[in-house]
Amino acid sequence: MITPWDVSEDVDYKKTMEKFGIRPFKDVLHKIEDPHYLMRRGVIFGHRDFENIIKSINEKKKFAVVSGMMPSGKMHFGHKMIVDQLIYYQRYNVKIYIPIADLEAYWARGMDFEKTKKLAIEEYITNYIALGLNLEDTDIYLQSKKDVVKDLSLKLAKRVNFSEMKGIYGFSGDTNIGHIFAPILQVADILHPQLEEKLPVLVPVGIDQDPHIRLTRDIAGRSKDFNFIPPSSTYHRFITGLLGGKMSSSKGDTAIFLSDKPSKSLKKKVMSCKTGGRETLEEQRKLGGIPEECVVYEFYVYHLIGDDKELKEIYNKCKSGELMCGACKKHCYEKIVEFLNDLSEKRESAREYAKEIVNNM
Amino acid sequence: MITPWDVSEDVDYKKTMEKFGIRPFKDVLHKIEDPHYLMRRGVIFGHRDFENIIKSINEKKKFAVVSGMMPSGKMHFGHKMIVDQLIYYQRYNVKIYIPIADLEAYWARGMDFEKTKKLAIEEYITNYIALGLNLEDTDIYLQSKKDVVKDLSLKLAKRVNFSEMKGIYGFSGDTNIGHIFAPILQVADILHPQLEEKLPVLVPVGIDQDPHIRLTRDIAGRSKDFNFIPPSSTYHRFITGLLGGKMSSSKGDTAIFLSDKPSKSLKKKVMSCKTGGRETLEEQRKLGGIPEECVVYEFYVYHLIGDDKELKEIYNKCKSGELMCGACKKHCYEKIVEFLNDLSEKRESAREYAKEIVNNM
Repeated sequence: MITPWDVSEDVDYKKTMEKFGIRPFKDVLHKIEDPHYLMRRGVIFGHRDFENIIKSINEKKKFAVVSGMMPSGKMHFGHKMIVDQLIYYQRYNVKIYIPIADLEAYWARGMDFEKTKKLAIEEYITNYIALGLNLEDTDIYLQSKKDVVKDLSLKLAKRVNFSEMKGIYGFSGDTNIGHIFAPILQVADILHPQLEEKLPVLVPVGIDQDPHIRLTRDIAGRSKDFNFIPPSSTYHRFITGLLGGKMSSSKGDTAIFLSDKPSKSLKKKVMSCKTGGRETLEEQRKLGGIPEECVVYEFYVYHLIGDDKELKEIYNKCKSGELMCGACKKHCYEKIVEFLNDLSEKRESAREYAKEIVNNM
Repeated sequence: MITPWDVSEDVDYKKTMEKFGIRPFKDVLHKIEDPHYLMRRGVIFGHRDFENIIKSINEKKKFAVVSGMMPSGKMHFGHKMIVDQLIYYQRYNVKIYIPIADLEAYWARGMDFEKTKKLAIEEYITNYIALGLNLEDTDIYLQSKKDVVKDLSLKLAKRVNFSEMKGIYGFSGDTNIGHIFAPILQVADILHPQLEEKLPVLVPVGIDQDPHIRLTRDIAGRSKDFNFIPPSSTYHRFITGLLGGKMSSSKGDTAIFLSDKPSKSLKKKVMSCKTGGRETLEEQRKLGGIPEECVVYEFYVYHLIGDDKELKEIYNKCKSGELMCGACKKHCYEKIVEFLNDLSEKRESAREYAKEIVNNM
C-alpha cells in the first residue's frame, strides 16, 4: 500500500481519479525540489493543475493556499495532515487563507455562531498554532464576518442552478436554502483571493472534497467577467482508524485526539490497534509482518517518523520477522506520548493567541 | 367597481382575500382619522394587521414602511400609486426604507449592477422625489451594499426549505441559486428595521406580492430568537391599462409613462383608450355612461382628482348622460398634461439629488 519509496495506488482511489480526471501526484513529484514527506510517501496521491503551484514555487512567485475548517468535535490525527501541509507551504512565498465555516455549520448542522467560534478558538486554531503554523500573515476569518466572500458568493450564486447542486450534493426538497447556498460560499472562499491579486490558488483536500473543487472550477470557468485562474488542488489519503476502518471523531476507539493525555486507556487504545502481524509469534518470525496492512506503520508514515531512513529500517525489521508487533506498538505509543506532551505544552501558549485572533475578527 | 363613496370588491380579489386570509380594508377604514383617497376609494382594498399601524398612528408612535423597487424599464402611472402611499405615510412618525433590488434584478433578470443603479437614479428615485417624497430621513439602499440585510438573509435562509420555495414561487431545477435565494433577501429587507428598534413594519403592495408577505410572516414566526413582529401589509388594486387589460411597461399602448411628453401621439393614446361609453351618442344620452368600466374614470379615481366632490360630479354627469366620452377624454388628457408638465419640471431639480443619494450609498 504505502511505502516511503514506492508510490502505489489503491484501486478505489485510482477509479475516482480516472472518473474525475484527477492526475497522479507522482507524475509531478520530481519537479518539486524539496517535497513534503506526505508527497514523497504517496499520502498525497493526486492533484489538479499542481503544475501552476510548482511554477510559482520554482520562480519564487506568490501563490495562495485556501484551507477551510468547520469546527465540529475534537481534532484527531486525521485532521493534523492538512495542517502539516499548510506548514510546509509556509516555507514558500505563500498567503494562506483559513475560512472558519461558521455559516455552513449553522446551515448544515444547526450550530450557533458563538459555539462554533468557541470551538474554533479552543480546539482548532489553538492546535494549528501549537502544531507550528504561523498565523501572523495568514488570513483566518469567520465566514459570517467576511463581507468580500459573502458578496462574491451572492454574485456567483447566479451561475449554478438547483439541478446541478442536487446532482453534486444530493439536496432534496427538505434541504434548507442556506444549506443549498453553502457550497457557493465555499466556492467564494476559494476564489476570493484572486479578487485582490491574480495568483494561483491551491486547495489541499481529502478526496471526499473533490466535488467542491469541481464545482469551484466549473463556476470559475463560467465567470469570464472575473477572469479567475481555476484553483489547483491536491488530494491526500485518509488515515486509517485504529481498528482498521475510518478514523472518526464520533468513535473514540478509532481515533487518537490531539488533546489526548498519556494514560493507561490511551496506551490500551494503541496496544489493541490493528496491525499487520501474523496469527502467532512463530509464524511472524518466519514470514515477517505485513506493514502495508498495519495501522501502527501507517502512523509512522503519516505522522511519527519524518526521516525516510528510520522508517525504512522499521519496515525492513518488520518484513524480516525481527520486529514483533508488541514491541512496535510500545514504540509507537512512546512516540505518540512524546508528540502529545510536546503539543500540550505548546497549546498552553497558543491558547491566548488563538483567542486574540478570533476576537479581533 | 370603484366609486369614491362605496367600497366594493371584484370577485377575483375577494377569492384571493378569502383563500389567504387578507382582510377587507373597509373594516378598518373608520379607525383612520385622515385616510388617503386611495383608502377612501377602495383602491387599497385589503390588509393584514393594519391595526398595528393604526395604533402607532393614533398614539403618535413610530412605525416603519418598507417598499422595495426593482428598476426595470420606465415608470408608469401604475408605479405612482405606491409612491403616493409613501408620501401619505410621511405625515406620520414614520421611517421609510426603500431597498433597490439590484441583487434580485441580477439573479432573476441578468441585469448588471451598474445598469440597475443608473436606472434607479434616472428613472425611479428622480421620479419619487419629483412626485413629492421626502428622501431626507428615508433609508434608500442598494441590496448589494446593505450588509445588515445580507447578513440577516443568510441567517434566515436556514428557516425555509426548497419545497416551500418551490411551492410559493414555482422554482424548478433550472432556477439559479441566486434566484432561489432572492425572496429571502426580500424577507430580510422587510424584517431588518426591527433589528435596530422593535417597531411595527408596514409593506404596501399589490396583491401579486402577497406570497412574499406570507413568506415573510412565516419566517418571522419561526424566528423566535429574533422576536419579530410579523409585518403588516396593505393591498392595492392594479390600474387598468389604456386598452382595458393590464398596464405594462413593455406594451407602450397600455401605459402612460411619467416621462411622457405632451404630444400628438400621447393625446391619441388617451383619446383612443377604453371607456364606459355606449355604442352611439344617442344611446349614451339616454342611458348614461358606465364609469365603473371606464379607464378614464379610473384615472380620475386613482390619480387625477383628489377631491371627492369633484369626482362625484363627473360620475353623476356621466351616469346621467350629460357628459360624453370625447369631452371627458379631452378633459382627462388636459389633466394628464398638467400633471406631466409639473412633474417634468420637478424632475429637473430632483435629478442631481437622486444621483447624490445613490452615489453616497
